[in-house]
Amino acid sequence: MASRRRIVIVGGVAAGTKAAARARRCDPGAEITLVEKGELISYAGCALPYYVAGAIAGESELVVTQAGEFAALRDIDVRTRTEALRIDRPAKTVTVRRLADGREDVLPYDSLVLATGGTPLVPPLPGRDLAGIHRLKEPADARRIRAEIDAGRVERAVIVGGGLIGMEMAEALTMRGVRTTVVEMLDRVLAAFLDPEIAALLHAHLRARGVELRLGERALRFEGDGDGHVRRVVTSGGELPADLVLLAIGVRPSVGLARDAGLAIGPTGAIAVDDHLRTSDPAIYAGGDCVENVHRVTGRPVYSPLGSTANKHGRVIGSNVAGGDERFPGVLGTMVAKVFDYTVGATGINAARAVEAGLAALTALVPAADRAHNYPAHQEIVVKMVAERHSSRLLGLQGVGPGEVAKRIDVAATALSFGATVDQVADVDLAYAPPFAPAVDPVHHAANVIRNKRDGLARTVGPLELQHMLDAGGAFLLLDVRSRAEFVARRIAAGARLLHIPQDELRTRLGELPRGVPLVVCCQRGVRAYRAARLLSGMGLGDVAYLEGSLLTWPGDIETGSS
Amino acid sequence: MASRRRIVIVGGVAAGTKAAARARRCDPGAEITLVEKGELISYAGCALPYYVAGAIAGESELVVTQAGEFAALRDIDVRTRTEALRIDRPAKTVTVRRLADGREDVLPYDSLVLATGGTPLVPPLPGRDLAGIHRLKEPADARRIRAEIDAGRVERAVIVGGGLIGMEMAEALTMRGVRTTVVEMLDRVLAAFLDPEIAALLHAHLRARGVELRLGERALRFEGDGDGHVRRVVTSGGELPADLVLLAIGVRPSVGLARDAGLAIGPTGAIAVDDHLRTSDPAIYAGGDCVENVHRVTGRPVYSPLGSTANKHGRVIGSNVAGGDERFPGVLGTMVAKVFDYTVGATGINAARAVEAGLAALTALVPAADRAHNYPAHQEIVVKMVAERHSSRLLGLQGVGPGEVAKRIDVAATALSFGATVDQVADVDLAYAPPFAPAVDPVHHAANVIRNKRDGLARTVGPLELQHMLDAGGAFLLLDVRSRAEFVARRIAAGARLLHIPQDELRTRLGELPRGVPLVVCCQRGVRAYRAARLLSGMGLGDVAYLEGSLLTWPGDIETGSS
Repeated sequence: MASRRRIVIVGGVAAGTKAAARARRCDPGAEITLVEKGELISYAGCALPYYVAGAIAGESELVVTQAGEFAALRDIDVRTRTEALRIDRPAKTVTVRRLADGREDVLPYDSLVLATGGTPLVPPLPGRDLAGIHRLKEPADARRIRAEIDAGRVERAVIVGGGLIGMEMAEALTMRGVRTTVVEMLDRVLAAFLDPEIAALLHAHLRARGVELRLGERALRFEGDGDGHVRRVVTSGGELPADLVLLAIGVRPSVGLARDAGLAIGPTGAIAVDDHLRTSDPAIYAGGDCVENVHRVTGRPVYSPLGSTANKHGRVIGSNVAGGDERFPGVLGTMVAKVFDYTVGATGINAARAVEAGLAALTALVPAADRAHNYPAHQEIVVKMVAERHSSRLLGLQGVGPGEVAKRIDVAATALSFGATVDQVADVDLAYAPPFAPAVDPVHHAANVIRNKRDGLARTVGPLELQHMLDAGGAFLLLDVRSRAEFVARRIAAGARLLHIPQDELRTRLGELPRGVPLVVCCQRGVRAYRAARLLSGMGLGDVAYLEGSLLTWPGDIETGSS
Repeated sequence: MASRRRIVIVGGVAAGTKAAARARRCDPGAEITLVEKGELISYAGCALPYYVAGAIAGESELVVTQAGEFAALRDIDVRTRTEALRIDRPAKTVTVRRLADGREDVLPYDSLVLATGGTPLVPPLPGRDLAGIHRLKEPADARRIRAEIDAGRVERAVIVGGGLIGMEMAEALTMRGVRTTVVEMLDRVLAAFLDPEIAALLHAHLRARGVELRLGERALRFEGDGDGHVRRVVTSGGELPADLVLLAIGVRPSVGLARDAGLAIGPTGAIAVDDHLRTSDPAIYAGGDCVENVHRVTGRPVYSPLGSTANKHGRVIGSNVAGGDERFPGVLGTMVAKVFDYTVGATGINAARAVEAGLAALTALVPAADRAHNYPAHQEIVVKMVAERHSSRLLGLQGVGPGEVAKRIDVAATALSFGATVDQVADVDLAYAPPFAPAVDPVHHAANVIRNKRDGLARTVGPLELQHMLDAGGAFLLLDVRSRAEFVARRIAAGARLLHIPQDELRTRLGELPRGVPLVVCCQRGVRAYRAARLLSGMGLGDVAYLEGSLLTWPGDIETGSS
């Protein structure tokens, strides 16, 4: 009988524990050691904002499995509060130190797994060590934040960074009665995922729920009181009072151990791995938040730390270290978050990223009901689809709104995994019944809009483009084709450029439209405007486009009442 | 300039109106005539149960567009209450008759579109013409049913047929306070979509909500009172009192016009069309509930009438009759329904259909939380995945439960559209955050179970198989590895065959397990049982399987309390 396979795993949160459990199931005889620097293994990092908010009551619910139970049920040597110090690759050993007593052990391995995770970035700003300035990575971080709020010491909070954790914590803190400001140096939140039109809708919701957004502002320094507790954040735009600060500007991969061992680090700064999740040393695997992934849309390396990816990594690594041959095809950068009453999500790449990647894109911006329009519980969502112009290949989908967004993101993520074109997306036989979807799903609708644009049936102007056109002051007219009642109630503030002819009067009042002046047709959500634009083109008006998303995605000024 | 294209469309519900609107947008100059026998066009047939239930208040909400408005906005000649009598294919004309005055018109066409829909099947049973016996196709049907309930004349209802409409109407009638019985001649409801394990869970929910199910029973005749109103349904199992009967045994395609014109009818009895939705006459297209589709999983013709499919057909036909070149790739038979507090859905084929299609299948039966287990709003669902054994190709997914099922069905439908394998499904970067999904989505989980079975890591017994084993009385033991408290509270009634060893005592109590006796390990949902089965196999016990779905999908007897 061959000697027992020795597997050592460094890091025991998501990828590490999953790899250990999977390796055990694949190889009942292996000798498996799991080393974790912290006290806990297998905790749910993604759940921390809900613990702060109080939606998850007890800290115990954050831990998926206790270390002792995990070890006993799987016959794994779990060593918590134990740090991996160095790897000796020629000798195939890793030296570890017990934090309790400093004792060092040398663990021989046949396969080593690095699941060392990531660390929240701390901006090198004056005052960053003041009390009351937090990060959010571990249950202990969440416990500290929650304790400060529970003690009534937090009236105002400033979150530095408008990424995923920033958004989830903006909700969590606000729900706890804390007046919360988000400082984001880019012009929008979740900029890695969202194009401006979708972000604008989320901004409006955040503000409506009392969150102050300071966009395009940079935190410069933190100022404290006599007790060394933070009291102010000074930004490029002014001073913000703060009893609590959360630093949420991102995560960097923890690659010290790998780098010291001479393993290849990729262009993103994370550990480089092949499609078997092997590092540059074939005896060493790595997964979870310490590695970079291939983006399945761009084919480029991307750093995209996520618990769901870590779990997939763990399974692949666990199989491979036990003699299997599993591959990991990469990620789509899929994201979803609950932000108050809205869901926001994205998969693939947005239009901004497509430009960066050198891909000519077609987009569709579509407000839609998430269920049948006559089903009472339906809610609005807005999706933006991005596709490659020459190939019609789907590149990404973003969505936001009070309705069911996550499902549409998952459909797009699945389609992206297979290189689907928008034509193929439009044909998918999605589940239809009034309580779940309209007969033409928002994903189908968006795909059809892109097809119409590609096929020359639809010419559109986007909301940002219209804002630029209004600012630039060129010659064009904005034609609103809604009913008189709708028009009087709310309309785009376009001054003398705004014209109103209800759609059912268009044929008879065609003469009122000046020839030779470009027309942008708008309505409530873009459907009537598209039809009207087709009608006007058919009647010989040359330069007719419609406003995508129309009133429902218009981020600019609105007029109400009779003019 | 060429003469205007003449397009005649017969049928104005979903496919017909969509084809007309699309044709208009693609060809502003075409002469388009839409002929509809009924009074309404463009009504939402799928919404009728919600109108009966009262969730949709007004009948006006059932109509998407009024005929006049539809006609005016699109410059389409809409003729309601007009019946198409016959097609003269050599002359390319269709003769129509106005129901109001019997006047006949001969409409010449360049392209003819048949969107004649389907008709609810009426079983040829004695008494079928009694008052109070209904079908549900048009708003008028729903209005009549609602009026009888509103008038307080309906205490008990019998629904003949446990298909989709039967399920939705069982909910609708019960919500209106009507004691409802469903008579289904097969052994389960939604048998075209669901395998027995999933149907069993739906049966339990229907019964818990007060619906009486008479499965494996046939309606034989209807008996009335002196006024000719139905009062009883006599079935193969007895007599059921009924003040209202709904016949919901299925729909047959309305193909009279096509058949009379000599167009090819397919093996399902619906109009045969090619992938451009052209009939056997290239000048005649057909779509919606009157045609058959290719099933994308089996490649075989299937009759699958659905509003979402009709909409897709309409777009393809509208493009093609206007000179385009669009294809329709077929359907997956995707279905979703709300049945009280449960969602039930399916896509692709179930295991029973796979057998019929001659496909050797692997399946996974997986109870799972629909969101992170520590997120308070999570709910249970059970999914069953089916894959082809030799190729690992996904064949279908079914799901049921109070949680989010529709999203998982849509993910599977998308994957099926691209011929995905279960390995590819397991790798899709689905949207993860605690309020939306667990880190390992139920779809991933199910795909992984199938991979484990294929790769020899998991041997399972299904709940029905276990029932057969218990009935057959062969030699085996059922080993429950849950905690003592769980075991005492609820356990499978397996008599002397049932053994209990908590998972954390397995290693030390291994000696209690008799060698040479096959073991089936069970727990609450199958996860612990899988791990324990692996452990026992690793320790040299040869014949060990685990019970898929375990307690959560067990349809048989349960014991409670100390034994």
